[in-house]
Amino acid sequence: METTLRRFLESDGMKVKLELQKVDQETKARAGVLHTPHGDVPTPIFMPVGTVGSVKGIELGLLEATGARIILGNTYHLALRPGEELIRDLGGLHHFTGWKGPMLTDSGGFQVFSLAQRSKLTEEGVTFQSHIDGRRMMLSPERSIEIQEALGSDIAMCMDQLVGLPNTDEKIYEAMMRSVRWAKRCLDFASREDQSLFGIVQGGLNRNFRIECAQRLAELDFPGYAVGGLSVGEPPAQMYETLDYTVPELPQDKPHYLMGVGTPQDLIEGIARGIDMFDCVMPTRNGRNAMAFTKHGKMRLRNLKYRADDRPLEEDCPCPACRRSRAYLRHLFMAGEMLGPILLSIHNITYYERLVTQCREAILAGRYRQFMAECYEGWSQSEGENGT
Amino acid sequence: METTLRRFLESDGMKVKLELQKVDQETKARAGVLHTPHGDVPTPIFMPVGTVGSVKGIELGLLEATGARIILGNTYHLALRPGEELIRDLGGLHHFTGWKGPMLTDSGGFQVFSLAQRSKLTEEGVTFQSHIDGRRMMLSPERSIEIQEALGSDIAMCMDQLVGLPNTDEKIYEAMMRSVRWAKRCLDFASREDQSLFGIVQGGLNRNFRIECAQRLAELDFPGYAVGGLSVGEPPAQMYETLDYTVPELPQDKPHYLMGVGTPQDLIEGIARGIDMFDCVMPTRNGRNAMAFTKHGKMRLRNLKYRADDRPLEEDCPCPACRRSRAYLRHLFMAGEMLGPILLSIHNITYYERLVTQCREAILAGRYRQFMAECYEGWSQSEGENGT
Repeated sequence: METTLRRFLESDGMKVKLELQKVDQETKARAGVLHTPHGDVPTPIFMPVGTVGSVKGIELGLLEATGARIILGNTYHLALRPGEELIRDLGGLHHFTGWKGPMLTDSGGFQVFSLAQRSKLTEEGVTFQSHIDGRRMMLSPERSIEIQEALGSDIAMCMDQLVGLPNTDEKIYEAMMRSVRWAKRCLDFASREDQSLFGIVQGGLNRNFRIECAQRLAELDFPGYAVGGLSVGEPPAQMYETLDYTVPELPQDKPHYLMGVGTPQDLIEGIARGIDMFDCVMPTRNGRNAMAFTKHGKMRLRNLKYRADDRPLEEDCPCPACRRSRAYLRHLFMAGEMLGPILLSIHNITYYERLVTQCREAILAGRYRQFMAECYEGWSQSEGENGT
Repeated sequence: METTLRRFLESDGMKVKLELQKVDQETKARAGVLHTPHGDVPTPIFMPVGTVGSVKGIELGLLEATGARIILGNTYHLALRPGEELIRDLGGLHHFTGWKGPMLTDSGGFQVFSLAQRSKLTEEGVTFQSHIDGRRMMLSPERSIEIQEALGSDIAMCMDQLVGLPNTDEKIYEAMMRSVRWAKRCLDFASREDQSLFGIVQGGLNRNFRIECAQRLAELDFPGYAVGGLSVGEPPAQMYETLDYTVPELPQDKPHYLMGVGTPQDLIEGIARGIDMFDCVMPTRNGRNAMAFTKHGKMRLRNLKYRADDRPLEEDCPCPACRRSRAYLRHLFMAGEMLGPILLSIHNITYYERLVTQCREAILAGRYRQFMAECYEGWSQSEGENGT
């Protein structure tokens, strides 16, 4: 590792580097270390989402204790409020939020397409109205990079064009090709030595488009690659199939990031297909809504069956929620106490981080396929929903 | 201290004992240690309010880090939801909530008078409808003790009758006398060896009533005494005056608890008059509403002046909120992020606990009056409201 680390520091400035430690023989699962300007991250890794500069409801010390090593900030939200200039003037997103580890920012494109009002798309970019105050704004590849450089994340994402699925091949191809042109513009515009820009593969569920996109982006030689436009309502099997033919087209010595995904099942299946990084609001959003992820399946804590259940969510989980009983957690939700959403968000992130850590250990031990089977076996108990 | 502790363990079962360490010569301020079945508490002390079994939004590890050593649970809220029988069956309020230190429960009377609907008062007790589901219920001195014994707090409070102020002397005297009769019934009914029952002095702002009540309760020989019915809208000066003539009538070797009070000023003035214990929702409730207490006065964090203020709330405060900037805290409130209320609640409790700790140190050092002057000097800077 020392050689790689030295190479990281000496060679390409402060760009992130993935040091691969093992590739599973039976699957394409990879274990490695991602070197970043704000420290090393073991992979595969799950990134909690800190939308507006905080992972909702979770104090930093508690967030660190979940095992999270890298978090995500949303460019659209932060640009609107408090504005990237203020964050830059206050020392960047790290100093502003107090998070000392690596951070990744998205491009803002997804939120412009999903949250903003009256958006209008041209080759130049997208004009839209803020969903907060109706302010007229513009996001382009250059503007997205400008914001992300002001925020100062370790990893920035190219702005891409999203299309809803299902859609016509023509529309999907058009958006994919525009995303490639925009990726080139992002790369040309980017100037921060200590920030690494990831390209994003689009192309819907079309094999040829995905492969063409991956190859075109690979030519641009990004320090990392993401697969975007998935987990937008298609069945899991179609997402896994898309990964089956897309990931092999990505440069294998670079990190692979599956954006906005997903369920625990999506994580282990994505890892089996060569994905190294994930982000998703699911553990926090579901936690706020009283759903806990466990190795025994999902549990809905408002269920009457937990009323007098003195056991923790998971016997061996080290998180603060698991120092209490299911009965207490249920009580907090029934009484509308903030602490319920807080504790379940913490538990779910801890669950996700423990899951990817266990994936990593299984890959290094050469038993990843067996580990996947054990996960499915555990989840099928569905203690929360059907069992005792 | 060892002698006292041995006496505590050998003598009167598990009742709480106040070990006085110093009484200030210039004021009546006292420093001591309250021995309880769940550990020792330095006095004077502030108790955060854990209404429904959690101090709103504060994970236990963070609560412990504020310096809080004893917390309060609300009998009315807990009896309604989840019900005291469930909590008893799950091992009591300590085991249920995970809080390992001492706990105090109120009688539920205050909430019956302030929150419940269609309450009807007789000598027997109060019948009322739950504010949650309209269920018809009854609270009497015996029922209040029954609930508090099921909860298993270290300190239980007698059920008393509250009257709104201003009111006629006749009504106030009647309520005071009924409170004394109820206190006797509570004492007769109480059976837990490891729970200590505190009597509550009532009597409005009437000197004679307060003194008579204190003397009547002193005859019943409670292990501790509270002053109730204050901080209900009267000017601070009237509250301090009431304490001036009430506290000297209380047994001086027993703890003195001023219920539901108050502002930082109320704390230092109460301590100067011989009060050892306080509870109040103010630090958490105001924290949730973006108000921070500091040694420089109150700060309203939504104020535009904090937009780019990179300083912490207080330079020397060890709490997690003070590891961030005022600008970041303001941003959390402007963006409606849960973490804002959480961090400010933590800061305010930390401020209150540091304040009573500093009071204690000043008393022990024989400079309490000087310390009060320094507090007033600091607060008058009102940095948050007027200053820089």
